[in-house]
Amino acid sequence: MIEEFSGDFPVSEFEARLNKAHVMMHKLNIDLLFFTSEPEMRYFTGFRTLFWQSPTRPWFLIIPKNKKPIAVVPEIGSALMHETWLDDIQTWSSPHATDDGVSLLTSILKPFSRVGMLMGRESSLRMPLKDFQSLQQNLPHISFVNVSAEVQHLRMVKSPAEIQFIEQICSIASTSFENAANLFQVGMPLDEVFRTFKKDLLTNGADDVPYLVGGAGDGGYADVISPPSSTPLKEGDILMLDTGATFKGYFCDFDRNYAFGRACDHVKHAYKILLNATMAAFEVARPGTRCKDLHATMQQVIGQSTGDVGRYGHGLGMQLTEAPSLIDFDDTVLEENMVITLEPSLSLGDGKIMVHEENILIQDGAPRFLSRLAPEELPILG
Amino acid sequence: MIEEFSGDFPVSEFEARLNKAHVMMHKLNIDLLFFTSEPEMRYFTGFRTLFWQSPTRPWFLIIPKNKKPIAVVPEIGSALMHETWLDDIQTWSSPHATDDGVSLLTSILKPFSRVGMLMGRESSLRMPLKDFQSLQQNLPHISFVNVSAEVQHLRMVKSPAEIQFIEQICSIASTSFENAANLFQVGMPLDEVFRTFKKDLLTNGADDVPYLVGGAGDGGYADVISPPSSTPLKEGDILMLDTGATFKGYFCDFDRNYAFGRACDHVKHAYKILLNATMAAFEVARPGTRCKDLHATMQQVIGQSTGDVGRYGHGLGMQLTEAPSLIDFDDTVLEENMVITLEPSLSLGDGKIMVHEENILIQDGAPRFLSRLAPEELPILG
Repeated sequence: MIEEFSGDFPVSEFEARLNKAHVMMHKLNIDLLFFTSEPEMRYFTGFRTLFWQSPTRPWFLIIPKNKKPIAVVPEIGSALMHETWLDDIQTWSSPHATDDGVSLLTSILKPFSRVGMLMGRESSLRMPLKDFQSLQQNLPHISFVNVSAEVQHLRMVKSPAEIQFIEQICSIASTSFENAANLFQVGMPLDEVFRTFKKDLLTNGADDVPYLVGGAGDGGYADVISPPSSTPLKEGDILMLDTGATFKGYFCDFDRNYAFGRACDHVKHAYKILLNATMAAFEVARPGTRCKDLHATMQQVIGQSTGDVGRYGHGLGMQLTEAPSLIDFDDTVLEENMVITLEPSLSLGDGKIMVHEENILIQDGAPRFLSRLAPEELPILG
Repeated sequence: MIEEFSGDFPVSEFEARLNKAHVMMHKLNIDLLFFTSEPEMRYFTGFRTLFWQSPTRPWFLIIPKNKKPIAVVPEIGSALMHETWLDDIQTWSSPHATDDGVSLLTSILKPFSRVGMLMGRESSLRMPLKDFQSLQQNLPHISFVNVSAEVQHLRMVKSPAEIQFIEQICSIASTSFENAANLFQVGMPLDEVFRTFKKDLLTNGADDVPYLVGGAGDGGYADVISPPSSTPLKEGDILMLDTGATFKGYFCDFDRNYAFGRACDHVKHAYKILLNATMAAFEVARPGTRCKDLHATMQQVIGQSTGDVGRYGHGLGMQLTEAPSLIDFDDTVLEENMVITLEPSLSLGDGKIMVHEENILIQDGAPRFLSRLAPEELPILG
C-alpha cells in the first residue's frame, strides 16, 4: 500500500507532529492552539505556498486538544488545503469588506477558554492587530497564553524526512560553493556574482534562493546583510557569500569566504581561527550540551566577543533561522536530531569582519556536517 | 554636485515621502508613527536587506511629527543603517536575554500620546505580541491609533524613480515570458519549468524571484498558488506562470498562459475573454475611476463572479501585492502614478480556471502598460 502524502511528507509525519503538540497542550492545560504564521501552518498541515508573500489575506490554523487541526483560510486557499490531510477546512471570501475571518474565528474559538499562541521571542502576529483585538473583545472569557518556547521546541527536533530535505539543500549549496572558481572572476560586478550564484544553485536543484547576502572588499568586508553593489571584484578582495536556499521548503544556511589573487596573513589567520572555532564547537555539540556552552567554546577560540552579530549560530529548518540561538543566555539543551548552524565571526579591525558558517546535525554521539566542510585554508581564486 | 543617495534613491525622494507622512500626521493629530514592518522601514529610510527573513530580531522605525525618522534596530543592522539618510539610529544588542528593544522603545515613545500604527487590512505586527503588550503596559497614557489606510495611500502613489524600477522589472519579466518557446518543451517536469524560468529572469537582470507560482494541466489548471509538481508537461497542457520578480526591491506581478501542441476552442475563447476584460479595464483606468468600477468593468466582460480569488487585481510596488484591491467594495479612487495589476480570472468548469494579469501605470489620460501586453491569441508552443 502506498502511504498517503500531505504536501511534502507522508501523513504519518503529521500525525507524529500533532501527537507531540497534543502532549504539550495537555501538559500546559491548553484547550487549543491558534496560529497565524506560515511555518506553523505548514508544519502541522503540509500546506506549502509562496502565496503568503501577499499580505492581503490572513490564514489561520487551529489545533484543538485531542483533535486534528482545523484550517480557517481564505477561499483562494481551499483547493490546495483540500490536498492536505485535514478534514475540517473552513473558508471565507477574502478580502472581505468588513470581516476578514474574525466572526468565523470567533465562532470556532468560543467554546474554549485557554488558547495557546505564539507571543514570544522570534514570533509575529500575522493578522491585523485590530482584528486580533476584536477577537479578544468578542471572547472576553478566553485567556491567550504564550506557547512560543514550547512550539519552538517541537520544531527544533527534526524528523528523518526533514533532515533529508535539509541535507539535500546543504549538498546542493555545497556543490555550488565548490564551483566558485568557475563562477566568479576578478572584474565581475558583485550583483552579477549574486545572480550567477543563484542560477548555479537552481541548476544544482535548489527550488528557491530566498536568501543570499554577502560582501566583498579589499582584505575583508564590512557588512553581511547588505544587498550587492555593482562594484566589480578586484585583486585582493575577500568575497563572502551566505545563502539560505531551499528544497521542499527547507533551508540550508551557510557561507563561504574566497580571496581573489592574494590574501594577507592576517586574513588567512582569521579564516583559520573561525574554522578552529567551528571544529571546537563541533567536537562538543552532543545531546546534553547547552547552546550557551557551544557559544562559550567558540568565544574561547576566537578570543573576542560576538560584537554586533550577537550570536554564533542558530537553529535551521523551515525558516532560515529558528530557535535556539548559540548565545550566552540560551540554556537550550541539544537533543538528537536538532539541526543547527555554527556561525563564528570575528572583527578584522578597521570595521571589517569575517564570518564562517556550517550546518550540522546533532546525533547520538558525534554530530554530522550537513554542509560539506569548507577548505582548511582560505581558498584563493583567480 | 552629485546628489546623495540613501539606499536605492536620492535623499530628496525620502524627504518627499517624509513630507507626505508629516502632512498626514498633522491631519490626524498623530504625534508619531511607529512601524515594525520591512516595507515601511525601507520606504522611509532606504534600508534594504534580505535579513528580515530571519525572524529572530525585531526592527523598529519611529517618525516624530516634523522630524526625521529614528531607527531603533539591532546592532547587527547598525552599519547598513548608517549608510541611509537617517541621523538618529539607536541600537541594542539583539537577541537579548530579557529585553529585545522594549525598554529602548519605551523611553523614546514616552513623551508622546497619540501613536500611529499599522493595525488594519493587510498589516502584521512584526514583533512579539508579548513585547507589544509590555509596551502598552509601560505606556498607559499612549493611544495607539490605526493608520493603515493612510500609510497605504501614501505608498500607492509612486514617484518617477519607483515607477522606473517597476518598469524595469516588468520589462525583464516580459522578455523572459516572450522567451517561453525557447525555455519550455513537452516532457519538461513542472519544477524544472519553474527553475528554468527563474534562471532566465536572473539572466535578464532580475535581482530576485521571490514569487513564482503557476499550474499546468490538460485543458487548464486547477490552482494558482501551489508549488510545482515534478509532472512533465504534455501535449494539450495549458501552462500558466505568474511571477513576482524584483529589481532594487520593487516587484512586477503578472502571468502568462501557454498551450502545448494544441488548445480547444473553449480554452482559446476563455483566453480572449480575459484579454478583453483586461482591455476593458485598461480603457477606464484613469484618475477618478474607483477600484470597484474597474472590478465591475471586468466582471461584466467575464460574466462570472470572481469566485475563490475574490478580486481582479491590486496595487503593486515594494510588495507583491499592495492596497488597493480591484474588488466590489474598494472605493479607492485612482490617481496619477498609481501602479496596479489587472488580473481577471474565470472558471473553465470541471474545477479548472484561467487567470490573466498585466501591470499598468495610471497616468493623466490613458494608462500605460508596464508589462508588455500578452499576445491576442493564446500562444501554442511545441
